[in-house]
Amino acid sequence: MALAQRLSRLGTETAFAVALAAADWKAQGHRVYPFHLGDLNLPMAPHIVEAMNAAIADGKTGYCPGAGIPPLREALAQDIGERRGTTYDPDQVVVMTGGKPVIGKFLQAVMDPGKGVLYPNPGFPIYESQIEYLGGQALPYGYLPTYDGFAIDLDQGRASTTDDTVALIYNDLQNPISAESSAAEREAIAALAVEHDLWVLSDEAYYEMRYEGTSASIATLPGMAQRTVILYTFSKKFAMTGSRLGCAVAPREIASVLSTMNTNDESCTTHYVQWAGIAALQGDQQPVADMLDVLRERRDVACELVDSIPGMHVQTPRSTFYLFPDVTETLQRMGMSDVSEFATQALHATGVSFCTRRHFGRPLAGEDRDYIRLAYSGIDAADITEGLTALKSWIESA
Amino acid sequence: MALAQRLSRLGTETAFAVALAAADWKAQGHRVYPFHLGDLNLPMAPHIVEAMNAAIADGKTGYCPGAGIPPLREALAQDIGERRGTTYDPDQVVVMTGGKPVIGKFLQAVMDPGKGVLYPNPGFPIYESQIEYLGGQALPYGYLPTYDGFAIDLDQGRASTTDDTVALIYNDLQNPISAESSAAEREAIAALAVEHDLWVLSDEAYYEMRYEGTSASIATLPGMAQRTVILYTFSKKFAMTGSRLGCAVAPREIASVLSTMNTNDESCTTHYVQWAGIAALQGDQQPVADMLDVLRERRDVACELVDSIPGMHVQTPRSTFYLFPDVTETLQRMGMSDVSEFATQALHATGVSFCTRRHFGRPLAGEDRDYIRLAYSGIDAADITEGLTALKSWIESA
Repeated sequence: MALAQRLSRLGTETAFAVALAAADWKAQGHRVYPFHLGDLNLPMAPHIVEAMNAAIADGKTGYCPGAGIPPLREALAQDIGERRGTTYDPDQVVVMTGGKPVIGKFLQAVMDPGKGVLYPNPGFPIYESQIEYLGGQALPYGYLPTYDGFAIDLDQGRASTTDDTVALIYNDLQNPISAESSAAEREAIAALAVEHDLWVLSDEAYYEMRYEGTSASIATLPGMAQRTVILYTFSKKFAMTGSRLGCAVAPREIASVLSTMNTNDESCTTHYVQWAGIAALQGDQQPVADMLDVLRERRDVACELVDSIPGMHVQTPRSTFYLFPDVTETLQRMGMSDVSEFATQALHATGVSFCTRRHFGRPLAGEDRDYIRLAYSGIDAADITEGLTALKSWIESA
Repeated sequence: MALAQRLSRLGTETAFAVALAAADWKAQGHRVYPFHLGDLNLPMAPHIVEAMNAAIADGKTGYCPGAGIPPLREALAQDIGERRGTTYDPDQVVVMTGGKPVIGKFLQAVMDPGKGVLYPNPGFPIYESQIEYLGGQALPYGYLPTYDGFAIDLDQGRASTTDDTVALIYNDLQNPISAESSAAEREAIAALAVEHDLWVLSDEAYYEMRYEGTSASIATLPGMAQRTVILYTFSKKFAMTGSRLGCAVAPREIASVLSTMNTNDESCTTHYVQWAGIAALQGDQQPVADMLDVLRERRDVACELVDSIPGMHVQTPRSTFYLFPDVTETLQRMGMSDVSEFATQALHATGVSFCTRRHFGRPLAGEDRDYIRLAYSGIDAADITEGLTALKSWIESA
């Protein structure tokens, strides 16, 4: 009895190893400052929980359609369309158990084995894992540091594109590096997609997780509506990561296929959680604003401290809840050549736990800078100060 | 922009078309008797809902491990092991968003494209859909009517087995036909698996949905533990179909792979629903007994009426909540050659809505009897009586 060969191509989120190492260190009695979590240590708003209980009391505990309950599909079409200055039909919305399922299902829908898919690297590691698991060619495009953050390496994107490339994954407001496209960059990505007739997965998980400015969706650019699938999630905006609720917004032929996949894969998304989702979208939005205020304060505290650490450099991102400082000079100062070793030593010396660039896709040829990712979504401002001050002292004293 | 070729092999549950037709008929102002649903019109027990709310209040709203929260894995290992007279380690339990995800993930883990998988037909339609979607050869085995139900056509199972066959799907306490293996039949299936060194998926969704007698698991037979993955679900026993909570119990190497698939596919199963699952397993079991009493009454009412309908024959199943009457002679009496036409006419003449044999896998060569499936899980005893009496009158007067 052998296991299937496809398993040799299955990747994972190696960041979970960081979480395990942090938990181990904590279990040994040490203080840990969790900057590794892309999760929120903030509660779901009470009216969302109340709506869920009302649905349970009303008997919304049985199976429901694979594409989601109609009132949630309507609410999502309305909300997602309005916030992007366009309109969607509820038929284009397919409810999912979170945003993540959209990645694998999109690839199953549009990518045959052997075909290429452009994806951001560093980027959410499941892109690379699922492209390769499903037998495709993972074609990375990277980012270049700029005076106020990062810009997509468009030349690399164009150079990576082959005749067999069928799709592009785009994650504006990016995890892990908090990059945000300029209008010109977004248009250049759209132009690349149109030129090569690519399907596009626009991962918009952080579309509303921003502290200033306004988000824009590539799906609304000319020629993009018919080729773009939007990944939407309730996870971040409504502090509902553990609820597992999201959706795809897709051209009708793709939406229909995604719905059939749901019927095959998990029947439906938890019924009463979908009613909670309607309350999240249509109820009081003050908790969202309050959460962004909390995150903004954490960002400001964290950025100022990180930028004061010898050898570390970071711009203040206007969105997401990640910092992606360049630590190349810090490593040199510490006499280390391996960013993983830096992370392990930092945990043991200071309790500060974080991921590195290596947790976000296979490093590309020619990369000569080292980066770490600090998430401030799962740690309070006081602990951010305490932890990063300890990290600073350790580095200063090295 | 083309869609991926694999989509041409993706099947579905065509029973949803029956649900749509019934909903349409109802929307036109007609009374409908829903015998098509494999769902329960019974509530989740209050202590399960209370445990979920306690978990939410306790902040169990963030991400959790892809394999499930440790206390639920422990509770499942304990409960599933004990009820099967064996022991499982929590490491062998992988929590899923229902029982259904185990089907596709099991096949991804053990079946390469081109390889064969034996599966029951008639059977749960997702078996056939997922085997073919993932590029395998779906090798059916059927059932033969016996004096008290149905028996697996073991000769057909053996004849379908090829050198390229790698797995067997077994669904004792069967949907749709309510077949239950004798000990000898179960041993013969195990012997086939051992002889050909097959992986086995044992779909035990109805293991505890029984009215008399005792269930047994093929996983406990000699030589089976190391090759068997059990599909377990909270859906039926705890009236939690819409909660989407189940698990796989698997040999460690498979459990590890299933956990990584979860990390790729949906991160985790809804966090607080897992705490509800612990309460379901460890709390008051009286609601389970009460529900089985309700279902037993429905079964008895339905069996008696069905058996009194001209040309229909059914044995009283000891488990599941389905009847699978032979309607061959009824169709002859009605002058119909197509069981689908019979179903449509029955809906329009009487409001009785049900699935047919055709919704449970591609019919096999040589089948010369017609069957329908009546589910009594989603309809009260009084409506069962009213609906089946109307069906009887319509057929008698034909």
